[in-house]
Amino acid sequence: MRPLPEPARESLTLAPVLHALGDPVRLELVRRAWASPGSTCSELADGLDVPMSTLSNHWRIMREAGLISMAVDGRNRRIRPRADDLGRRFPGLLDPILSLAAAEPPVSAAS
Amino acid sequence: MRPLPEPARESLTLAPVLHALGDPVRLELVRRAWASPGSTCSELADGLDVPMSTLSNHWRIMREAGLISMAVDGRNRRIRPRADDLGRRFPGLLDPILSLAAAEPPVSAAS
Repeated sequence: MRPLPEPARESLTLAPVLHALGDPVRLELVRRAWASPGSTCSELADGLDVPMSTLSNHWRIMREAGLISMAVDGRNRRIRPRADDLGRRFPGLLDPILSLAAAEPPVSAAS
Repeated sequence: MRPLPEPARESLTLAPVLHALGDPVRLELVRRAWASPGSTCSELADGLDVPMSTLSNHWRIMREAGLISMAVDGRNRRIRPRADDLGRRFPGLLDPILSLAAAEPPVSAAS
């Protein structure tokens, strides 16, 4: 697997992380990525009515903010949550957001 | 004072709140608004190197997401954090974000 570039833990800043979480589709993708680490992009986007180009943009925003790691695995891209890096850099940030996201109405429309 | 329109507590959703927090200038304005409720927009933006039109846009995004209430007070606009509404709608969300924001590097550049 070939990892895509991502910011180092110590260079992560809060606003881009919140921005990456501040979209209903990305919030749902993050929730799914945390629930199923190592899944492919297409597995995680299953059932979401979002164009492929929009999804690619969402994954890039999440990777560049430091929320996820992406690696090329043959024809797939696999996603791993950067749970450890985020927990150390921003302790206490993600758990309440993921819990609250799970209680939001389901996402299905294009964004 | 004439209040500007804002969403009802029960209609607040998580992604717009995170989006409103997902910008370094807005994050700093929110932090200041929570520290000094009832301040005017210009008091809260003191020292930030951001054009007035950009600031207006930031306040609108924060008001429409439900983070703050705005009221016209003569020639000023006063800001109140919607701490109670947010605490009831999204328990546990804001306190860690405000604590982490206080530890971020200071914002001064235009955004």
